[in-house]
Amino acid sequence: MSGEATIRVSEIFGPTIQGEGALIGVPTVFVRTGGCDYRCEWCDSLHAVEAEYRGTWTPMTAQEIMAEVVRLSGGKPLLVSLSGGNPAIQPLGEVIRQGHAQGYGFALETQGSVARDWFSDLDMLVLSPKPPSSGMQVDWPVFDACLQAGQGADMVMKIVIFDDTDYAWARDVAARYPQLPLFLQPGNHTPPPPDDDSATVDQDGVDERMRWLVDRVVQDRWYQARVLPQLHVMLWGNKRGV
Amino acid sequence: MSGEATIRVSEIFGPTIQGEGALIGVPTVFVRTGGCDYRCEWCDSLHAVEAEYRGTWTPMTAQEIMAEVVRLSGGKPLLVSLSGGNPAIQPLGEVIRQGHAQGYGFALETQGSVARDWFSDLDMLVLSPKPPSSGMQVDWPVFDACLQAGQGADMVMKIVIFDDTDYAWARDVAARYPQLPLFLQPGNHTPPPPDDDSATVDQDGVDERMRWLVDRVVQDRWYQARVLPQLHVMLWGNKRGV
Repeated sequence: MSGEATIRVSEIFGPTIQGEGALIGVPTVFVRTGGCDYRCEWCDSLHAVEAEYRGTWTPMTAQEIMAEVVRLSGGKPLLVSLSGGNPAIQPLGEVIRQGHAQGYGFALETQGSVARDWFSDLDMLVLSPKPPSSGMQVDWPVFDACLQAGQGADMVMKIVIFDDTDYAWARDVAARYPQLPLFLQPGNHTPPPPDDDSATVDQDGVDERMRWLVDRVVQDRWYQARVLPQLHVMLWGNKRGV
Repeated sequence: MSGEATIRVSEIFGPTIQGEGALIGVPTVFVRTGGCDYRCEWCDSLHAVEAEYRGTWTPMTAQEIMAEVVRLSGGKPLLVSLSGGNPAIQPLGEVIRQGHAQGYGFALETQGSVARDWFSDLDMLVLSPKPPSSGMQVDWPVFDACLQAGQGADMVMKIVIFDDTDYAWARDVAARYPQLPLFLQPGNHTPPPPDDDSATVDQDGVDERMRWLVDRVVQDRWYQARVLPQLHVMLWGNKRGV
């Protein structure tokens, strides 16, 4: 038995396009890790979060992960999106090192609850602090440590918004981190149950929230905020693997 | 009567978000000029193109245009999107100069059929050569002159795709301009008639074309291409002024 650290992988899929945030529309392979230190009320990836799905997660070495990424991408380098769960609780430094050596790029999205020294090796670090509607509480000193660890990577902030309370909170957070390009995203109040990705999305409701969010941003003349939807949900609903 | 050049303006509206391309999601005010040297089969802005709507276009000075942009934006600088018609056939250099002095940024989208020395003053020049389905023929030496004129601005290329022929054409064009970040956009086959912006969009059909386009890009491992929809059409249909 080797002593090499393994990573708990929930799914590796793609290429498809990145559906959210700064890299929206960019072809990418997703590596979704299993496990999370948060339990957001509206989590849309519970199959990669809840302990009862742990049996579906596969321990893989960095080499095994990159082999699958290379297979899916046909050996042609592209952007790899590291997602979760919270991918920051996994030892991903070696995946990034091996992938870079083969020409692949890496973006990682995390809530900012665990700082890793390998954040600085990322091409992009997406910090997504969770608003009040999530039921979670941000530990700001740890969030700041993530920001510190990410120096060297492009860093952006993405905040999901469900309601006025989330919106007011996002205004405060944005004022605290003016150096981070900011992406606001309307929340999906109909996330899939972990065992059924064919469950219907109330896309009309989500679109309505998106229009409301654009109106708010415009009314408040908050021109630094960029407002983007979950494009993959608009196109494919809650379906996984696209 | 002053000798100052006037610009034919079809509409000035916003702030809303940019719905397309590199700046998707960014709050912006649109300045849509009237008049075009092209007649694309599927033009979605005929009210700013066809001569019979010329009576709805207002001649405005640079100062009058900026006064309206400042009014709409509440005097807080933001991105101004110069659109058309073909905005390159209007004398917009002075608008950009005055707007920059007040802190505003400028992006202009054009098919690349008319080169202007003031392109270099833009913050972003979006070159959108029209594919075969448009019924137009690109004059490549002039397109190259636009590229030359735009040195100093961020430049990107956006290509609308309706079918396999357009797609194959886009592959060739992209190969010729590898230095330009590339955005592919599925076409809307149900553009509004110029006198009725409440006409229904076949959004299911457009979404289907978007999924097809993602599939093609992925199958061909064309990872340099970024695929984005017309977000404003998804959210507001053909409605104008949003």
